[in-house]
Amino acid sequence: MLDITPEVQRLIDRALEEDQAFADATTQALIDPSIQAVGEFRAEEAGTLAGISAALAVFQRLRPSADTQIFIEDGDALAPGQVIATVTTSAEVVLRGERLALNLLQRMSGIATETAGYVKAVEGTHARIIDTRKTAPGLRTLDKYAVRVGGGHNHRMHLGDGILIKDNHLYLLDREATNLSQLIYRARERASHTLKIEVEVTNLHQLEEALEGHADIVLLDNMSVEDMAEAVRITGGRALLEASGGITIDNVAAVASTGVDLISVGALTHSVKALDISMDISTIR
Amino acid sequence: MLDITPEVQRLIDRALEEDQAFADATTQALIDPSIQAVGEFRAEEAGTLAGISAALAVFQRLRPSADTQIFIEDGDALAPGQVIATVTTSAEVVLRGERLALNLLQRMSGIATETAGYVKAVEGTHARIIDTRKTAPGLRTLDKYAVRVGGGHNHRMHLGDGILIKDNHLYLLDREATNLSQLIYRARERASHTLKIEVEVTNLHQLEEALEGHADIVLLDNMSVEDMAEAVRITGGRALLEASGGITIDNVAAVASTGVDLISVGALTHSVKALDISMDISTIR
Amino acid sequence: MLDITPEVQRLIDRALEEDQAFADATTQALIDPSIQAVGEFRAEEAGTLAGISAALAVFQRLRPSADTQIFIEDGDALAPGQVIATVTTSAEVVLRGERLALNLLQRMSGIATETAGYVKAVEGTHARIIDTRKTAPGLRTLDKYAVRVGGGHNHRMHLGDGILIKDNHLYLLDREATNLSQLIYRARERASHTLKIEVEVTNLHQLEEALEGHADIVLLDNMSVEDMAEAVRITGGRALLEASGGITIDNVAAVASTGVDLISVGALTHSVKALDISMDISTIR
Amino acid sequence: MLDITPEVQRLIDRALEEDQAFADATTQALIDPSIQAVGEFRAEEAGTLAGISAALAVFQRLRPSADTQIFIEDGDALAPGQVIATVTTSAEVVLRGERLALNLLQRMSGIATETAGYVKAVEGTHARIIDTRKTAPGLRTLDKYAVRVGGGHNHRMHLGDGILIKDNHLYLLDREATNLSQLIYRARERASHTLKIEVEVTNLHQLEEALEGHADIVLLDNMSVEDMAEAVRITGGRALLEASGGITIDNVAAVASTGVDLISVGALTHSVKALDISMDISTIR
Amino acid sequence: MLDITPEVQRLIDRALEEDQAFADATTQALIDPSIQAVGEFRAEEAGTLAGISAALAVFQRLRPSADTQIFIEDGDALAPGQVIATVTTSAEVVLRGERLALNLLQRMSGIATETAGYVKAVEGTHARIIDTRKTAPGLRTLDKYAVRVGGGHNHRMHLGDGILIKDNHLYLLDREATNLSQLIYRARERASHTLKIEVEVTNLHQLEEALEGHADIVLLDNMSVEDMAEAVRITGGRALLEASGGITIDNVAAVASTGVDLISVGALTHSVKALDISMDISTIR
Amino acid sequence: MLDITPEVQRLIDRALEEDQAFADATTQALIDPSIQAVGEFRAEEAGTLAGISAALAVFQRLRPSADTQIFIEDGDALAPGQVIATVTTSAEVVLRGERLALNLLQRMSGIATETAGYVKAVEGTHARIIDTRKTAPGLRTLDKYAVRVGGGHNHRMHLGDGILIKDNHLYLLDREATNLSQLIYRARERASHTLKIEVEVTNLHQLEEALEGHADIVLLDNMSVEDMAEAVRITGGRALLEASGGITIDNVAAVASTGVDLISVGALTHSVKALDISMDISTIR
Repeated sequence: MLDITPEVQRLIDRALEEDQAFADATTQALIDPSIQAVGEFRAEEAGTLAGISAALAVFQRLRPSADTQIFIEDGDALAPGQVIATVTTSAEVVLRGERLALNLLQRMSGIATETAGYVKAVEGTHARIIDTRKTAPGLRTLDKYAVRVGGGHNHRMHLGDGILIKDNHLYLLDREATNLSQLIYRARERASHTLKIEVEVTNLHQLEEALEGHADIVLLDNMSVEDMAEAVRITGGRALLEASGGITIDNVAAVASTGVDLISVGALTHSVKALDISMDISTIR
Repeated sequence: MLDITPEVQRLIDRALEEDQAFADATTQALIDPSIQAVGEFRAEEAGTLAGISAALAVFQRLRPSADTQIFIEDGDALAPGQVIATVTTSAEVVLRGERLALNLLQRMSGIATETAGYVKAVEGTHARIIDTRKTAPGLRTLDKYAVRVGGGHNHRMHLGDGILIKDNHLYLLDREATNLSQLIYRARERASHTLKIEVEVTNLHQLEEALEGHADIVLLDNMSVEDMAEAVRITGGRALLEASGGITIDNVAAVASTGVDLISVGALTHSVKALDISMDISTIR
Repeated sequence: MLDITPEVQRLIDRALEEDQAFADATTQALIDPSIQAVGEFRAEEAGTLAGISAALAVFQRLRPSADTQIFIEDGDALAPGQVIATVTTSAEVVLRGERLALNLLQRMSGIATETAGYVKAVEGTHARIIDTRKTAPGLRTLDKYAVRVGGGHNHRMHLGDGILIKDNHLYLLDREATNLSQLIYRARERASHTLKIEVEVTNLHQLEEALEGHADIVLLDNMSVEDMAEAVRITGGRALLEASGGITIDNVAAVASTGVDLISVGALTHSVKALDISMDISTIR
Repeated sequence: MLDITPEVQRLIDRALEEDQAFADATTQALIDPSIQAVGEFRAEEAGTLAGISAALAVFQRLRPSADTQIFIEDGDALAPGQVIATVTTSAEVVLRGERLALNLLQRMSGIATETAGYVKAVEGTHARIIDTRKTAPGLRTLDKYAVRVGGGHNHRMHLGDGILIKDNHLYLLDREATNLSQLIYRARERASHTLKIEVEVTNLHQLEEALEGHADIVLLDNMSVEDMAEAVRITGGRALLEASGGITIDNVAAVASTGVDLISVGALTHSVKALDISMDISTIR
Repeated sequence: MLDITPEVQRLIDRALEEDQAFADATTQALIDPSIQAVGEFRAEEAGTLAGISAALAVFQRLRPSADTQIFIEDGDALAPGQVIATVTTSAEVVLRGERLALNLLQRMSGIATETAGYVKAVEGTHARIIDTRKTAPGLRTLDKYAVRVGGGHNHRMHLGDGILIKDNHLYLLDREATNLSQLIYRARERASHTLKIEVEVTNLHQLEEALEGHADIVLLDNMSVEDMAEAVRITGGRALLEASGGITIDNVAAVASTGVDLISVGALTHSVKALDISMDISTIR
Repeated sequence: MLDITPEVQRLIDRALEEDQAFADATTQALIDPSIQAVGEFRAEEAGTLAGISAALAVFQRLRPSADTQIFIEDGDALAPGQVIATVTTSAEVVLRGERLALNLLQRMSGIATETAGYVKAVEGTHARIIDTRKTAPGLRTLDKYAVRVGGGHNHRMHLGDGILIKDNHLYLLDREATNLSQLIYRARERASHTLKIEVEVTNLHQLEEALEGHADIVLLDNMSVEDMAEAVRITGGRALLEASGGITIDNVAAVASTGVDLISVGALTHSVKALDISMDISTIR
């Protein structure tokens, strides 16, 4: 279950103001504040649920006394028609929070569902499906949480919690003159001892250099399945290997079967398809 | 061009902190701060550009002296390989801002591209393609801007700038006993005179009631093309008509041909496919 | 009753810090924190109450356990000497919050009282008394709420929720060459379909152009009562008419009798006379 | 000149968002961003100017390159028709900032003008006109600045920068049993040595006690002019004397002539009449 | 007991985010959220406790239902081994908050302990031990609170609540030409009547000038004990005298015995030695 | 040089408000704003400089046009009397910013100086001196920067960027029944692959278990120098070894000579002695 931390709370607050949920002209004009209602979240298609605590926190922010009940937990499979959760409070509160609650729930469940598809596709291998930093600006915590809910794992949360030496760094460091293993040594010398060092390589020669430098993780960039298998053989467990670039639901199983440890999929978070979830309202008499 | 308002600036600031762009362990360990570089944004596929000023503002926030040049403007068509813009500054600044700049640009251009597809599909009719409130939490301003860049128009920005009476409201108002036109009168009586009143209807009978109540806009919910055409005939310009529900790129032309004024498409913003744009870096010697 | 939304809460928080209510040197030096007291709000003159929930929220922010009771509701008439509400909590909390609570209550009740005077003056006509954007910076939500409490209605909340074409716009648009109705068409073409279009006119000729352009609202700027009456006749319900400029409590009835729909009064919020309300404290033994 | 401190800047930012000045629907629809214009602030009635730097900062926040010129300084007398200042920038920026700039300028100048009236009325005496903490919530810094501009002085900025023992404190401290001078000693014993101690008294007997306790300032609450004169005689310079309660422009000279040091007037800030100032716009060709 | 004001709450919030207490990788990976535990704060050395309510507020922020019990109050003496307080809640919450709670408690208790040493050293004299503005940036409220807990008093909270004319001011005011007493008159003329005026002097001649100007407080800068005693004699109660500069625990008694009113010690807050306090955890079965 | 990131800027802003640097009563009353002055930072004792860019940023925040010059860089040794940097701007700005600038500079230089002492003591060994999370709340970024400036390295920045299994975790995990190596496997299984895993051990037996579990780092808690030497021998490079607990400037060389990789010293940041640095002001004529 997602913890409603101050960060998540602020995100909800900003989104409520963005939607002017405290100044809903329609409910102000028409809805008697004394009417009590139940809002019922229902799956309209199959998938994996994520974000229900965030969705319900929307109503609790609007009305601390709002009563909520959860029937399906984050990570559970959804069948069309299933009731996920309910919120019971003033009808106007249900109406004012509905859109944001659904926006959160549909996006997060969309990410979890897509991730679960990839995870299922690599079942039986030891490969982890991991995300990237290609998240919606301001939503990284939620996006990465949804990946975990879908059975995936997280790559770096941000630029501060790991060293990742990519092609652009190599280019800037005038790679011709510098051996890759030396670069890794240099980074280890200067950085905090708490950080792992990952290096992006595009061929097996670079891989050898990376291993020589005792890289903790090696990113195999857009390599063929054959090269990846060879990379696994060469590495022999000396470093974690991450497959990256051009991964799709169709080729992910083949990639996993090479024995790589990690498979990163940017589309999990940069191209999200909302999962269809609806909210029905009924009055309490 | 998107104005970098305080709101957009705050969004960029939050996203930079989320990515710890000020504490990038890799550049700190490896990149000499005196190296100057050019970052070049390049289209990797065809589409419509949106958000270039936001992307470049990322670098200006990291280093106010960063120099930027724009070759393609928001709303312009992109061909694969085209250079969109450049940023010239310290290499470490280019590297620290790259991910966020691309995250903004790819999402916004993805929205604009999809919108432009719908707009093109209804060319020759007078229908406007409009968005909904189904935006990513915290990103509404950017999402809706991208829709406009793609040639679409915006529906309500939030709950405060228009009355929209939907099925849930009708249910709560015990619709059996109340005529729809009376509801509209009641809303008009209570609400600010500056707000338009829109009503959702599911059949032509309800449409008649809405027109009787002088609704400003009528939302035709999931109606058949035939019913929509009839609705247009009945209305005769007395209200704006919005087609909504189940709109796809395949059926949007048929819907537009009925003569409706507005066609709303939730997927424009709730299910965004990132447009492929990359950044290359080169040093200045 | 005013909802204590996050926006109102932030306003109270800022005002408490501005007053250093958490570092009150006098109570710190002299008042035993264990003394319990009742603070009693009392009307010192006749008027219309507004803002009591905001005033009491001050104490609840200082001490969540503070107990409050409300005897008179927002919008009710106040007679001198009447007890409006009480707060029961630690004496030091009552003292620290007193000034801010009164500052809120006196200003808001002052606005409501003045508004109620105008509303009473136009009783029997169908004219609405409306406010303007001439509010105290940072207090618009409270100021406009108080107008509603006094029986008035709100004009635009801000620049984003309506089109209002004023003399300055016309001047910039080189009015000589452009017909007013064309301007309205242009605005409608470009703006969101959700927004009403209001046009300021200074004479009946301009009014005709505005009606030709199907303006939703026409602002009659500083017109004579005779011209306003003629404007009402000409318009015949095709647009809402707003009287504006030079409205006072002495002439508002005459203006209303012309049949205009809306009468806007800037002084309601730009020149507020505080209503005299006091707070007495007594200990609980 | 008011310093545009971070606090003032934040206040302007909040007010710009409150007015949605970054999303002005009218200028977006109609005004070509390339049109340059001059906005000219002009006095419509006589008074004392205050807040011109805050008003101009509004435009500089909207467009940092906005060019401003000031012809009349804060504290100067205004004659009807006089041009106060100009702002030169994009026409749309002038229009978007106009309302907030005027709201600031009219309120602050209103306060300065009223204060200047009181100051003039006591000319020739040594009494200072001072304000109170009865300011608009969130605007204390601006309100108190305007009082200084009008020739007045400030009382406490907030509860933290002075001890003020009022009737409510006395009541809570069970005054029957405790001598006022003892209370002052107790406060001095416990409070920071940096704070002055002021005591409210309602009669000359209490004054004697206050002086005995070496109060730094004594507030004479609602005393007759005769009693105030006697209080001045008794005190003989041993403490500052503040007249408070029921002060009007009609009786302030009489009060001042008693020889009191300070005269506090709540209405200076709690009941502000906006000074009439307008803005004209003209294009630059 | 320290009040957990919004300012203190914000400080705790910032510190929790700084420590990423909501994303503790270790507890996430290993600790079952259902395990309940007791965290016990224990003194590891003798000293004076300060800040226990702030320390416990850390856990309540992480989990509002956390149960806390306090056995020793702020200001009480600590003996090694004594249990100070307990927090009972989910084990993961205890672990996530432990470091910040200790960081607050150890610093504040360190300040209180050091202050108490100085206060004890001057026992029997009437001198107050006071702090300075040499506090850790952002922690002034806590630092100055801890001084009070240790039996000290506070000097100015900030630049706004007192006038202090130091050598730098004198230099800028071209002291050769201006008598010190004239400067004091000038400051009194211009400043709010609520502020006391303190002047720094380095010799007895300047002291005479300061007294002539009726300074409220005179700071004796780095004077010998003999000169301070003479200063006390000369002043004869006409102003408060503050000894400042080079005060140590070894010479403070001698300084106090001269009869000065105030002794300021910058090291109380600029060079803090953390008091050794630990936290033990035990599960509840 | 410390980057003045938004985080550092906010810290400076908060500290300026805490000190009310924008409302300095003394300069307002006495200092002519047109006087230009130079503020000169000067070392009063030997040490290592840290934080000069933060100190100077204070003045640039108060007056963007302030001109600064740096003569000694962060990390350089300071000799008593040396001029570190100057700021040239309005005299009042120099005075208003002086205290905060010194508070930053003295604390940060104090940390750097102390760290440099430890680093010098272990010269010739390969041990790194590292900090802890025992920093002043809200100042972690600055405190840890100062450690780096002094030649030290950083341990975890916060709870999110590394796994550290301590005695409290072991206790909660019912260690009797669970082998330490199993715990490490479990953590690795569940946590992001980007995180290193560190384990605290108190004896050599636990060390063996930690190595068996392939811990990345092992913390040797309060071990004797002999045991540490043996631990180094046993480990043989399979993990980084961190010495922790009871480290002082007197024993650190002996600890380093055992061959451990890391030596953590909490006192570097929890018990900071300010370095004596002063600021002189002189006018520009």
